[in-house]
Amino acid sequence: MTNTAAIIGGGVIGGGWAARFLLAGWDVRVFDPDPQAQRKIGEVLDNARRSLPGLSDVALPDEGQLSFHDAMSDAVDGAIWIQESVPERLELKRKVYQTLQEHCAPDAVIGSSTSGFKPSELQGCATRPDQIVVCHPFNPVYLLPLVELVTTDLNGDDLPARAETILRDIGMFPLRLTREIDAHIADRFLEAVWREALWMIKDGIATTAEIDEAIRMGFGLRWAQMGLFETYRIAGGEAGMRHFIEQFGPCLSWPWTKLMDVPDLTDDLINAIADQSDAQSGMHTIRELERIRDNNLVTILRGLKAQDWGAGQVLNVRDRNSTALAASLDQVADISQPVLTVHRAVPLDWTDYNGHMNEARYLQAFGDATDRLMMIVGCDADYIATGGSYFTAETHIRHLDEIHAGARIRVETQVLNGAGKKMHLFHWMYAGDRLLATGEHMLIHVSLETRKASEPAASVAEPLARLADAHAKLPRPEGAGAAIGVR
Amino acid sequence: MTNTAAIIGGGVIGGGWAARFLLAGWDVRVFDPDPQAQRKIGEVLDNARRSLPGLSDVALPDEGQLSFHDAMSDAVDGAIWIQESVPERLELKRKVYQTLQEHCAPDAVIGSSTSGFKPSELQGCATRPDQIVVCHPFNPVYLLPLVELVTTDLNGDDLPARAETILRDIGMFPLRLTREIDAHIADRFLEAVWREALWMIKDGIATTAEIDEAIRMGFGLRWAQMGLFETYRIAGGEAGMRHFIEQFGPCLSWPWTKLMDVPDLTDDLINAIADQSDAQSGMHTIRELERIRDNNLVTILRGLKAQDWGAGQVLNVRDRNSTALAASLDQVADISQPVLTVHRAVPLDWTDYNGHMNEARYLQAFGDATDRLMMIVGCDADYIATGGSYFTAETHIRHLDEIHAGARIRVETQVLNGAGKKMHLFHWMYAGDRLLATGEHMLIHVSLETRKASEPAASVAEPLARLADAHAKLPRPEGAGAAIGVR
Repeated sequence: MTNTAAIIGGGVIGGGWAARFLLAGWDVRVFDPDPQAQRKIGEVLDNARRSLPGLSDVALPDEGQLSFHDAMSDAVDGAIWIQESVPERLELKRKVYQTLQEHCAPDAVIGSSTSGFKPSELQGCATRPDQIVVCHPFNPVYLLPLVELVTTDLNGDDLPARAETILRDIGMFPLRLTREIDAHIADRFLEAVWREALWMIKDGIATTAEIDEAIRMGFGLRWAQMGLFETYRIAGGEAGMRHFIEQFGPCLSWPWTKLMDVPDLTDDLINAIADQSDAQSGMHTIRELERIRDNNLVTILRGLKAQDWGAGQVLNVRDRNSTALAASLDQVADISQPVLTVHRAVPLDWTDYNGHMNEARYLQAFGDATDRLMMIVGCDADYIATGGSYFTAETHIRHLDEIHAGARIRVETQVLNGAGKKMHLFHWMYAGDRLLATGEHMLIHVSLETRKASEPAASVAEPLARLADAHAKLPRPEGAGAAIGVR
Repeated sequence: MTNTAAIIGGGVIGGGWAARFLLAGWDVRVFDPDPQAQRKIGEVLDNARRSLPGLSDVALPDEGQLSFHDAMSDAVDGAIWIQESVPERLELKRKVYQTLQEHCAPDAVIGSSTSGFKPSELQGCATRPDQIVVCHPFNPVYLLPLVELVTTDLNGDDLPARAETILRDIGMFPLRLTREIDAHIADRFLEAVWREALWMIKDGIATTAEIDEAIRMGFGLRWAQMGLFETYRIAGGEAGMRHFIEQFGPCLSWPWTKLMDVPDLTDDLINAIADQSDAQSGMHTIRELERIRDNNLVTILRGLKAQDWGAGQVLNVRDRNSTALAASLDQVADISQPVLTVHRAVPLDWTDYNGHMNEARYLQAFGDATDRLMMIVGCDADYIATGGSYFTAETHIRHLDEIHAGARIRVETQVLNGAGKKMHLFHWMYAGDRLLATGEHMLIHVSLETRKASEPAASVAEPLARLADAHAKLPRPEGAGAAIGVR
């Protein structure tokens, strides 16, 4: 049976909730008096459909049905979850709950997306306060897992437990808070940072761009994978969290922020933090935490590198300045020999559960080697922008030896054929003298417009032919043209 | 000619600097009176050597020479960069500079890792104040690119420009500040968050673990790729940054943080922020920024998924609950037919500059299909933990059609041979009825101890034989046993 969610109030947040439920297979019924609501939710859904399903390594259920309704009473019909995302005015929210509760199932969860109001405030004038909880998500709702689930004693145990289960089912991470506070947890940090940032701009210390770089090139990368305390636990090292806090205690009286109202760093507070940190992270040694952190950071940095953005762009700029590999045929020292097309260390994120470089990364390295060979014969980014490129039609890899993260590998490439639409390559991958793998690849030149085979332009065909001619004098590689199972 | 850096004060920060310079090919000379300095720096270097070189897609230069020295005068000999990371006591730092400046080159950069002191304070009693700048890095120094480079008028133009070039050369991102302020920029935000967090723990609102989840499951993911202002620019949508700030102005007077000293939100301040944001991000439309953000977030989330950590672990828990694919032979509905081994959407981070799924990701999907087939015949994580596994020896892929992000693909797998040490598989990849690729794979069972071929245990051999027998009645797949270039 398909579950139904009601979305009260569209916009970016309501639309994000709609996407979460729809793409998890729920039917979604929307109420929003804004005549633009359908368009706005459609835009959020477009973004969600391109990004969310691929996050999982298994197919999500088929999408549910999306419908728009003119009356709240109609929208909540059959809903077991009702998400309210109307503007942040307490009177408005209370009025919405009164209307909702005349029509909705008495055991449906009513979640509020409020950033600031406490659940007790929302429950204030309600017919059934036990039904109402805070479910505060983060934009983009369809990608970020966090939901602050804030409850009061009136909610009892059953409804919050059901809410947690449903939030997990739709792919979110409910953080349950039973002590309520203005702005919950996360937005308090954001508000503190925001106020500090306003001072910096007002005082002419830094611009918005400089402030953003100070975040995303440094602690922002850390916070994508470990929070404040786990990060500082590592910084404290073997001396431990207690030592770290005591050591940094004096800073609290220094003018390091405009926030000068600080709690006394009593023994009780220090003990509470140290004990909580032990409970949170004590299952790992500091050395283990360092390596987990570094694996995560390498993964994030390399991901951003592939997107050519932020800290990843910094890495790309540096790589582009490297002259370790030829960028054109003129730069190849000796075209009569196989060409060096990859020379790199194996990244931490290329290894798998077997502890060695994963098979797909062999093809990634060979793919990089092919890209470099293409660049060398003139099929570079500028050429591709004119509408021609080579697509791989066929690949044959022989895995001959293992290799581990950090080791240096290189790939040398022989052109077996480089005439007409075809480019037939043979790659050897080495670590030192050790042959790790060979890759044989048949590529076809294509028009990026028609996506069909086409002749390369002379600016590519000629250098490729020159290299192929030079390589024709080399012996045919052992293993070229071999088939699996044929010996 | 090899450049030389002097590291004054080892520890985690000094060690991180040593790693940055060494792995960029510099000679590094260390002075630290701590008898443990060599061990401590060695530990940081171990971490750096496993993580840093693989960040780049080209090989770094060969490592420079690392040496330890008993006298500061000896350590700075020949150094063009001197990095001071001694404890945060102004008198101590000033004394260090006086000693340094008696011996070091007058045009060497003296960078201080200080978190809190302003450059004018450091320059205070120096013989040559123009040589001294703040270069404040972030832990782990060998991975995080940010360095706050804070200068005063005394530094002139040449030395800061040289410092920026060197920092970029060793892979870092210098953020140049010419207006000095206690704690620079980033640590002011950290300090504000730290103080707010102390209140929350003291007041019993949240534990260290809950605070960390509130960070890394939500805004921490955003801040790894865009900072405060670019993120809010997107939240403001087409209405723009000015509208966003005005709308959230009232929050500044609400008790959303203990930080209640806020600047007046004057028109001047609003204009400054809106104009700076235009200069920073105005080259992208809001829609473009949304897509850039989503691409980055998907990449980060999928990276953390591969590490099974934080927000990525949330995704894995959900995937493991999926019953879309069989987990054992008993769960395969009809073993006489090829087995469904992959069913998923193509993630955003699997596409490349040609706009379609990258060739290496075909092998990743086929590798996942092989892993699933292994799991189905009993070669699962538990079995692998006992010391046996299959390694791929040979792969043959035919790329028949393109596929784009978001599309659903599935892989069906036929066992061609499953006897003795061999497992010979044939995968078909489809999008709907469209055949995208085939993958033929020869795997060999190995002992993970000897890394040599070995017989699988009966718990694997028997189900595999049963599946191979059932599949033996299927026709041999078109393309099986084919070689490249042979028609």
